[in-house]
Amino acid sequence: MMAGAAVAVGPENSGEKTHLSTIRYTSSLANNSALREEIDLTFEQLPSPETIIIGETAWINVDGVHDPELVQKIGQRFNLHPLSIEDVLNTTIRPKQEDYDDYLLVILKMIVRNKSASKGIASFVTEQVSIVLGKNWVITFQEHHAGDVFDGIRARLRGSMGKLRANGADFLAYALIDAVVDGYFIVLEELGEEIEVLESQVTSTDSTPMLTQIHATRNFGLFLRRYVWPVRDVLAGLERSDSCLITPSTKIFLRDVYDHAVEIMEMLEAYREMAAGLMELNLSALSNRMNSVMMVLTTVTTIFMPLTFIAGVYGMNFEFMPELHWKFGYPLIMSVMALIALGMLVVFRRRKWI
Amino acid sequence: MMAGAAVAVGPENSGEKTHLSTIRYTSSLANNSALREEIDLTFEQLPSPETIIIGETAWINVDGVHDPELVQKIGQRFNLHPLSIEDVLNTTIRPKQEDYDDYLLVILKMIVRNKSASKGIASFVTEQVSIVLGKNWVITFQEHHAGDVFDGIRARLRGSMGKLRANGADFLAYALIDAVVDGYFIVLEELGEEIEVLESQVTSTDSTPMLTQIHATRNFGLFLRRYVWPVRDVLAGLERSDSCLITPSTKIFLRDVYDHAVEIMEMLEAYREMAAGLMELNLSALSNRMNSVMMVLTTVTTIFMPLTFIAGVYGMNFEFMPELHWKFGYPLIMSVMALIALGMLVVFRRRKWI
Amino acid sequence: MMAGAAVAVGPENSGEKTHLSTIRYTSSLANNSALREEIDLTFEQLPSPETIIIGETAWINVDGVHDPELVQKIGQRFNLHPLSIEDVLNTTIRPKQEDYDDYLLVILKMIVRNKSASKGIASFVTEQVSIVLGKNWVITFQEHHAGDVFDGIRARLRGSMGKLRANGADFLAYALIDAVVDGYFIVLEELGEEIEVLESQVTSTDSTPMLTQIHATRNFGLFLRRYVWPVRDVLAGLERSDSCLITPSTKIFLRDVYDHAVEIMEMLEAYREMAAGLMELNLSALSNRMNSVMMVLTTVTTIFMPLTFIAGVYGMNFEFMPELHWKFGYPLIMSVMALIALGMLVVFRRRKWI
Amino acid sequence: MMAGAAVAVGPENSGEKTHLSTIRYTSSLANNSALREEIDLTFEQLPSPETIIIGETAWINVDGVHDPELVQKIGQRFNLHPLSIEDVLNTTIRPKQEDYDDYLLVILKMIVRNKSASKGIASFVTEQVSIVLGKNWVITFQEHHAGDVFDGIRARLRGSMGKLRANGADFLAYALIDAVVDGYFIVLEELGEEIEVLESQVTSTDSTPMLTQIHATRNFGLFLRRYVWPVRDVLAGLERSDSCLITPSTKIFLRDVYDHAVEIMEMLEAYREMAAGLMELNLSALSNRMNSVMMVLTTVTTIFMPLTFIAGVYGMNFEFMPELHWKFGYPLIMSVMALIALGMLVVFRRRKWI
Amino acid sequence: MMAGAAVAVGPENSGEKTHLSTIRYTSSLANNSALREEIDLTFEQLPSPETIIIGETAWINVDGVHDPELVQKIGQRFNLHPLSIEDVLNTTIRPKQEDYDDYLLVILKMIVRNKSASKGIASFVTEQVSIVLGKNWVITFQEHHAGDVFDGIRARLRGSMGKLRANGADFLAYALIDAVVDGYFIVLEELGEEIEVLESQVTSTDSTPMLTQIHATRNFGLFLRRYVWPVRDVLAGLERSDSCLITPSTKIFLRDVYDHAVEIMEMLEAYREMAAGLMELNLSALSNRMNSVMMVLTTVTTIFMPLTFIAGVYGMNFEFMPELHWKFGYPLIMSVMALIALGMLVVFRRRKWI
Repeated sequence: MMAGAAVAVGPENSGEKTHLSTIRYTSSLANNSALREEIDLTFEQLPSPETIIIGETAWINVDGVHDPELVQKIGQRFNLHPLSIEDVLNTTIRPKQEDYDDYLLVILKMIVRNKSASKGIASFVTEQVSIVLGKNWVITFQEHHAGDVFDGIRARLRGSMGKLRANGADFLAYALIDAVVDGYFIVLEELGEEIEVLESQVTSTDSTPMLTQIHATRNFGLFLRRYVWPVRDVLAGLERSDSCLITPSTKIFLRDVYDHAVEIMEMLEAYREMAAGLMELNLSALSNRMNSVMMVLTTVTTIFMPLTFIAGVYGMNFEFMPELHWKFGYPLIMSVMALIALGMLVVFRRRKWI
Repeated sequence: MMAGAAVAVGPENSGEKTHLSTIRYTSSLANNSALREEIDLTFEQLPSPETIIIGETAWINVDGVHDPELVQKIGQRFNLHPLSIEDVLNTTIRPKQEDYDDYLLVILKMIVRNKSASKGIASFVTEQVSIVLGKNWVITFQEHHAGDVFDGIRARLRGSMGKLRANGADFLAYALIDAVVDGYFIVLEELGEEIEVLESQVTSTDSTPMLTQIHATRNFGLFLRRYVWPVRDVLAGLERSDSCLITPSTKIFLRDVYDHAVEIMEMLEAYREMAAGLMELNLSALSNRMNSVMMVLTTVTTIFMPLTFIAGVYGMNFEFMPELHWKFGYPLIMSVMALIALGMLVVFRRRKWI
Repeated sequence: MMAGAAVAVGPENSGEKTHLSTIRYTSSLANNSALREEIDLTFEQLPSPETIIIGETAWINVDGVHDPELVQKIGQRFNLHPLSIEDVLNTTIRPKQEDYDDYLLVILKMIVRNKSASKGIASFVTEQVSIVLGKNWVITFQEHHAGDVFDGIRARLRGSMGKLRANGADFLAYALIDAVVDGYFIVLEELGEEIEVLESQVTSTDSTPMLTQIHATRNFGLFLRRYVWPVRDVLAGLERSDSCLITPSTKIFLRDVYDHAVEIMEMLEAYREMAAGLMELNLSALSNRMNSVMMVLTTVTTIFMPLTFIAGVYGMNFEFMPELHWKFGYPLIMSVMALIALGMLVVFRRRKWI
Repeated sequence: MMAGAAVAVGPENSGEKTHLSTIRYTSSLANNSALREEIDLTFEQLPSPETIIIGETAWINVDGVHDPELVQKIGQRFNLHPLSIEDVLNTTIRPKQEDYDDYLLVILKMIVRNKSASKGIASFVTEQVSIVLGKNWVITFQEHHAGDVFDGIRARLRGSMGKLRANGADFLAYALIDAVVDGYFIVLEELGEEIEVLESQVTSTDSTPMLTQIHATRNFGLFLRRYVWPVRDVLAGLERSDSCLITPSTKIFLRDVYDHAVEIMEMLEAYREMAAGLMELNLSALSNRMNSVMMVLTTVTTIFMPLTFIAGVYGMNFEFMPELHWKFGYPLIMSVMALIALGMLVVFRRRKWI
Repeated sequence: MMAGAAVAVGPENSGEKTHLSTIRYTSSLANNSALREEIDLTFEQLPSPETIIIGETAWINVDGVHDPELVQKIGQRFNLHPLSIEDVLNTTIRPKQEDYDDYLLVILKMIVRNKSASKGIASFVTEQVSIVLGKNWVITFQEHHAGDVFDGIRARLRGSMGKLRANGADFLAYALIDAVVDGYFIVLEELGEEIEVLESQVTSTDSTPMLTQIHATRNFGLFLRRYVWPVRDVLAGLERSDSCLITPSTKIFLRDVYDHAVEIMEMLEAYREMAAGLMELNLSALSNRMNSVMMVLTTVTTIFMPLTFIAGVYGMNFEFMPELHWKFGYPLIMSVMALIALGMLVVFRRRKWI
């Protein structure tokens, strides 16, 4: 992208307003444990790194990145590199993590259900989440003001219990990443169900719409892969990172998310292979059905063609056709026809055509 | 999964009770070699790391992991990391090994036959086995109280002979892993037999059920791969591990299991390729059969169409058709028809259609 | 290629004239920031490395590399290695970067639209761009005098603002590479649209031209891959390079282009897989359609063959056919025929053929 | 496999007797070069490591590994690790090499022709060869007493000339490995011939047996791969090995066998790809043939259907059909039919159907 | 191969005589630059390493390697390792490079056109070239006395100009390797043309010969790969080699050949994929054509079957068929038939079948 230009890249949502909110808390292990939550702030009301006291952790959540100036102002307040701000604004880039010494930038994609769309895999869209981890603060930028994926974390923070409140900013970042990655399992489950449904239909029906659906399922697998595969590298990078922003005890938890990411990748690959197998299965099933249609056609044709011919022969108007004058010519020829038909049927039965 | 929350993840079996049992023994090389076996213990009756005397090895077996509190209590008694307990409880995760300095956690999947199901590859299900190797104790967590895969090891321990009794906890862990991995060979054998049966049928029958079966066999290969492939990494990790819990002499044996895991992977890949080839073979066989059906149809049509036409011509009611009044018109035209039919047959014979 | 011989390799464009132009500027951060632009220079008017003053950056652009002597003379003035000159002249080589201590050579391919051709992916052709980065100069060699891909950079330079004017030659080189790589996104977008169009047509039409188009799309993917894949290695090489010609701050930006290159590669691979799936989808759709054609044929044949046979039977001229003399023979036989036809229709309806 | 249990694993050949033989020789470069060969020895007559004098090389060949006790006794005499003995006895494991400091164990598979079977690739079976290389002795364990693959080496040893007699045990081991690997070329040659035969038949015949044969050829490729691929790792391991049992001059020769193994792998992969291509070629050829059958059918049907219809029209018994009473009605209508048939033929000729 | 035995391996050409020739020259930069060329030498006339004066470079060319004794004698004169001589004589081995300290052995395959064969890709055969690079000499062994690929280098040497004469033996070796690798581009070009021709034919004709040709093209790709892929490793090995026989300035040029080799590999892979796509395209085109044939058949059958049936009905000989006696029965029924036919045509037109 154009170097040094902070512009929002990606589908336009200019009508959407940007929402700012913060949660600030001190460790639940500390004496005077406290949590303060503020929503719908203006830029001026946002904390700056200097105003966050030691022992406190501040989580600043920015919903909607369609206002470049605002994002840029936030970036400047927290000393973010221009390229970081560009990455946050550009919602078309692939997941990645970058270590800028003072802070870590992690960009992930949530796969969320588009509310307005119909159900099924076609309703999933991506939403970019940028997580910036500083010394005692975390900023999250969400593409839209809709994702409820972080609501569970908010609830756990408010609950003032568990590891989340007992640890610092790096553990909060881990929990956020974990929430995003866990969201993939739901999408994969739906993909798996879609494939199972198609599997049960593929040999019994042969409508073109199903073909299109199998194809769409394969493409959805490709679509997921683009966003899920890089996550492994992101997590491997965080785990191996020698940044002092991540404590060793949090790294053990990151290793756990890494394992989930690997599992997701493997499930996805298995699903992709299953979907590819579906197309082949469908082709075989089609050939199978065509075979049986052909057998019916051939059976009928092969039985009636000779009979019709014989009837045609005795429909000829030659003067001298002795059989026509035999008393039992008609029943005789009818019996011959019946025998031919029976013989054919026996042959086809033996060939297992009927 | 939700960090810090110890909950059982996976299909519910809440009705199932958890069974605890222990086997404690001293080395058969020691003077007063002894083995003590206890079943159906309560949590309070379980040994703790401190109560296991030096020179003694304790194997604690937990059948059924559907009681999170119990598992958590066991974990706390043996100082297991919360993430380890989570992994033990979550029966959907992929095989892995983790080194927690004080203990090693190895998670594997047994592929066992579902007793209630019909026979064949469709009856196999996975069962998670978590093996925790401490200084002089081993804890195994099995998903269900059904696996007899460890019965052979119990018998060998009781027999008070062989390497198993002569060595410590790490060798016991090796033997348990070896038993799980050896179990895969049986599944692979069955898969191989399934493929052989399908191979012998694929060119002779063309029913849709067989198609579905080939597809199911391919999917079973994918299913196996998910659980078998990571085993290699697990074993490579254990072998390369610099944990002091595994003695060098045991590592030679782990190398042996590693070789088995590699062999299993290669067999699996070969079977998967064979199953993929089956689908293609089936498609070709279908085309082949359709070809022969088409040839029959074409032969019959091509022979009888001209004859029926000729018969139709002499069935026309024109007043002035001289042939109709010839004395030998009828035998003549019948001979012409016979010649045409014979010529056609010769042509088709030359083309090897009949 | 023949070692040591400086000849132009690639399609001949001998009629085309070579255009030389320069832009020289000092940093916008300096006191007397200045930019001087000259076009249509002769070789003699070109600056030499010695004449470029410290603090100044010179960008020499050479449009058209079909005049080997001129390129060689430029190469000698800037002390380029004979192999570098060969590479610049040979427009068939794959993208690469070479570090010659005194300068860095980066060869890339622009994918540009051939103006004379029709629209669609068939109209894209490659154009080689060689970027030579020296201490305070950059030389760019373009295959033709047509590429407007660098016009944006010229405009930004003239604008005397932004990072581009504030930095030196290495940042200019980065901006040029970035412009080339960004150009790929446009081509990929068009490829994606092409695939979408084909996807919407593939199940509804079955003309041979569409087949050819799918095949052409796949080949276009292969064609792109040849030029896009090496770009990743080029950028990885530049980023890892220990050349003192690239400052650390520029490397962060190169890392960004690298990410774009990786993204382009992944998009391309996804498109290639989608195009491959299209061929399979088309084959299945064709089989599907053939199936329905066969069903019509079989239905018609199976209904009319027996009826025609019956009509044939009562067209026979036997003397003794009692049915012919029945009063209600005709309506009776017509009713029988109608019943047979109806029965057939019911059977086919049940089989869901009609 | 069950750790610590020395049992023969693999197909049973219990009726087969184990044959022991030795060849002991001193270097042909020594003053009193000598070679002593003994066959059909008992276990007691076998040399032990201590009885082999310095400068002498002893090759102990054990034909048949179906007597676990004997193999175990030999193993104990030469201080082999229990796992080594297990590996020798288990004829189902994949090729590998293990360094046990005192000796090197190399396990390979010969692909030999089953004498009782018919010719062709179906007649090949594997036979395990275990080569144990000690300081100045080599023990070879062959699965059956049938392999003549080592006869050439015996002949060269007896001939008292060439490098083989001039070097020690490591060169003998190299020569044995080389003999096994060279045996693969013969199998590959046969596979190549099989594929060539199939290639020449695949477009001209379409019998189901050929389909089965192509499938069998693909599976044979998979079968070979299981035994041939690991050989490369075995040889790479030996070449890189820092065991003092292999002299640097022998390593150069091992590098040569490694090159052969790589070549064999590449040939095998090429053959496998060719066999896969055969299946596709067959499918296309089948479609091609079906196409031409369909064209014949369509041509015949399209020509005779209208003619039969016309004949049927004039076979109708309407009282008032003026054409029937025309004098030239019959020749006229016959001419019309002939014109229609001719017109059809022209159309089909233009479409290149006939 | 049998260790230590110097025999010629590969197709026999025993009738062919071996030709020896030398070119000896001093650097064109030296004062008394000279070049001496001798052809049809006997073995005794060949220079030995000691007789080549310092500053001089000797190129000994051996055409034909079917005389093992001669090759062995040359090898002994230049102190080649027995394995090197074996490799030179064995014309079936894959390309490789070996560093024997005193000399470097590079074995490559030229792909040359068999003069006696017809044109097209079928006429290409391989010819082995072994290049031995010593301190100030180069020996080249060519399989046959036919290759003109080195004639260009001879001409450039005689021309006493250019880099070739200015540099030593390592640059000569580079130039020879470069000539071999450049020869691949010609073969690839022909392969590309072959694929283009097939591409233009594949959707319009459907003869079995074309199928065979596509298959042959794919196999040719496999054949090329066997000889072209290892070349990359050979060149990478030479470039990374720490042998003092290759000067750093020559390594820059070797890097250039390496780039060519990589490009050749990528082109080859692209062509292979295109050829694979051709088979699929052909299958789809065949299905497409079959579809249109089926539509013609179905259209004709569906139109005429009902008409023929109606004609058959009024050809029945029932006594009481009132329609037969109507005055306008015949024209009425003919009109009904025409309407049915028209209706059918409309239906088929709507379905876009005709």
